[in-house]
Amino acid sequence: MEVKYDYDALAQDGRLTLPELPGLWKYLPLLPLQQEENIVSLGEGGTPLLRCQRMADIYGAQIEWYIKAEHLNPSGSFKDRPSSVGVSAAKEAGAEKVVIASSGNAAAATAAYSARAGMECVVFVPESTDPGKVIQAASYGATVIPVTGNYSHSYDMADLCAKRFGWPNITSTFLNPYTVEADKTVAYEIFEQLGGRFPDVVIIPIASGPLMIGAYKGFDELRHLGRVPAQQPLPAMVGVQSEQCMPITRAYLNGDAQVHCWDGTISTIAGGISDPLVGYENDGTLTLQTARASGGMMLCLTEGEIWQATQMVETKVGYYCEPTSATAIGAVSKLWNEGFLKKGATVVSVLTGHGFKYTGRRCNILQPISKVEQLEILLKKTQ
Amino acid sequence: MEVKYDYDALAQDGRLTLPELPGLWKYLPLLPLQQEENIVSLGEGGTPLLRCQRMADIYGAQIEWYIKAEHLNPSGSFKDRPSSVGVSAAKEAGAEKVVIASSGNAAAATAAYSARAGMECVVFVPESTDPGKVIQAASYGATVIPVTGNYSHSYDMADLCAKRFGWPNITSTFLNPYTVEADKTVAYEIFEQLGGRFPDVVIIPIASGPLMIGAYKGFDELRHLGRVPAQQPLPAMVGVQSEQCMPITRAYLNGDAQVHCWDGTISTIAGGISDPLVGYENDGTLTLQTARASGGMMLCLTEGEIWQATQMVETKVGYYCEPTSATAIGAVSKLWNEGFLKKGATVVSVLTGHGFKYTGRRCNILQPISKVEQLEILLKKTQ
Repeated sequence: MEVKYDYDALAQDGRLTLPELPGLWKYLPLLPLQQEENIVSLGEGGTPLLRCQRMADIYGAQIEWYIKAEHLNPSGSFKDRPSSVGVSAAKEAGAEKVVIASSGNAAAATAAYSARAGMECVVFVPESTDPGKVIQAASYGATVIPVTGNYSHSYDMADLCAKRFGWPNITSTFLNPYTVEADKTVAYEIFEQLGGRFPDVVIIPIASGPLMIGAYKGFDELRHLGRVPAQQPLPAMVGVQSEQCMPITRAYLNGDAQVHCWDGTISTIAGGISDPLVGYENDGTLTLQTARASGGMMLCLTEGEIWQATQMVETKVGYYCEPTSATAIGAVSKLWNEGFLKKGATVVSVLTGHGFKYTGRRCNILQPISKVEQLEILLKKTQ
Repeated sequence: MEVKYDYDALAQDGRLTLPELPGLWKYLPLLPLQQEENIVSLGEGGTPLLRCQRMADIYGAQIEWYIKAEHLNPSGSFKDRPSSVGVSAAKEAGAEKVVIASSGNAAAATAAYSARAGMECVVFVPESTDPGKVIQAASYGATVIPVTGNYSHSYDMADLCAKRFGWPNITSTFLNPYTVEADKTVAYEIFEQLGGRFPDVVIIPIASGPLMIGAYKGFDELRHLGRVPAQQPLPAMVGVQSEQCMPITRAYLNGDAQVHCWDGTISTIAGGISDPLVGYENDGTLTLQTARASGGMMLCLTEGEIWQATQMVETKVGYYCEPTSATAIGAVSKLWNEGFLKKGATVVSVLTGHGFKYTGRRCNILQPISKVEQLEILLKKTQ
């Protein structure tokens, strides 16, 4: 299911943005909501596009590099866009309750927007979900239900409730068209923040990939709307996965037309993109097709590369982010060394989740340093 | 030490804001930085001002109520404003290293902006500081040094380093004038977000209180600059503390001219405002004077009231916040019932820290609900 617009009418209308509306809702004419009063907003969108030249220099990448800070959305992840639009649409449809399946970020986001809307929210999470993410979702007052097995089982439970009880299913895969519509706004913002031009490459951490599809549609719409010349190529969309769970990257590397689900045990610090796609492999295929059609690609990083990239963005940029996000940073080093990134290219890496989402697990990673050692470090530094 | 400006010249100049600059830096002409290239920004400021009418209705408070979402700043707290301005000033002064004492939020913020600036950062934290906050600060690459005893000991250590090694001390108390200057911008934003008017009351969680002093100065400057009529009264500034640590509120209630430090053990879920003010009681006195001069007041909440307010803002608004922040919410119920808030008054509550800052401790508060119970809740809800 996809939402279509009459771009010619919109282009003539001229008033594509309504600056008086909050966050991403200034793009209301390009979003699938009829009435302004149904907007459910917490101030999502309008995230910073931060130039990060020092990090490019460290990687030796001669590019113009930006970070799109989606981790700075209200609930701490890029999922606030689809949740804001999805819950608003549910409100417009007269729903009093929504359901969602999520392995983390989308659960918290949907719970937050449901609370804002005064709706009940039922969240199915895999039993293995990070406690911090469960606590966040529950804190908003959502009914959080752990489900045994992998994410696909939670996905099925949400689908079941949606069908049996008629609750809107906000699960942010291609199941819900509002997801892609909301994710478009990331592209609109990047275009505006670059002063009215497209980047050459956009790099996104990928689970099933709605954000890549949405962003690509956003750039395509800007061209339809005449914001850039009709012959202007769209940005190359690059997706990053973990070596531990890379169903889409595997298909890309094999030159397959179809994505197949990922079997085998998964152990990665990039939980947000740890999705075997069991039962909805076609979502992955759509993402694969987008990466190829855009002239982009799919790649993967090792656990070591992901953790190194996490420390890189935190210590050289000052953004605290979960390892999943950092895959969009680590990918740049690889893409530059492999010659995929051209000299002088404008590159945007999207950070999808805040470091807070991962703090709990860090306790096992960061070695607590004793006071004595700390003082030695201090004295060494002050010599 | 206080920074002064030639308001007449500024008012004539006209160009008070530079919209092309990021976050709070659009107010550069009113900030103590000479050169634009010394700006160290992560996109701080420009936080949402969210109308929260449903919560007002629940409290039965007939007011026009807004939340200023300072917890949505990049590192998760309002301390990003003073850290951005403080580190930028340190950069302009040619410093390569900064030092700070903090019980949490300011540590993470200063570590983040130091990383952004490529400066070393030394952070002294009380040994009892929440591990999550220590992990965040350390993740940015700062040298984090736990100090025994209460916050005052960490404060002394930072002071010592600043004097001995000449490092700029970013400790965000009145010790550092840039703090108050940065905090002014909260007032500018509230004024603009209300469509060019002052709120009647601004409610702020208070440790020593630089945010209250800064915001008050900001409103006062807007009047000096002719943005409001000269006879327009400034907002009443209300400060909130925990019953467990209320040195300033105690002085207010006793009608004292001076604030005295808080002795005795402190046990509160509002760690961000748990400051006994030992050794810098005068900072508290300045805050007390501001609350009185503005026609505002100081009050305190019990632990139960604070936790209830935390759940209120999370489940009725959709903002995940640390209990410290929620004191600005719970205060409204008290102030309305006591008749301090007039019918129809425009009230702004400032949320200072993100709920992520507190997730770790919630594990002990939230009772994990079994799957069976969850399913019962679900079924009850679906009848």
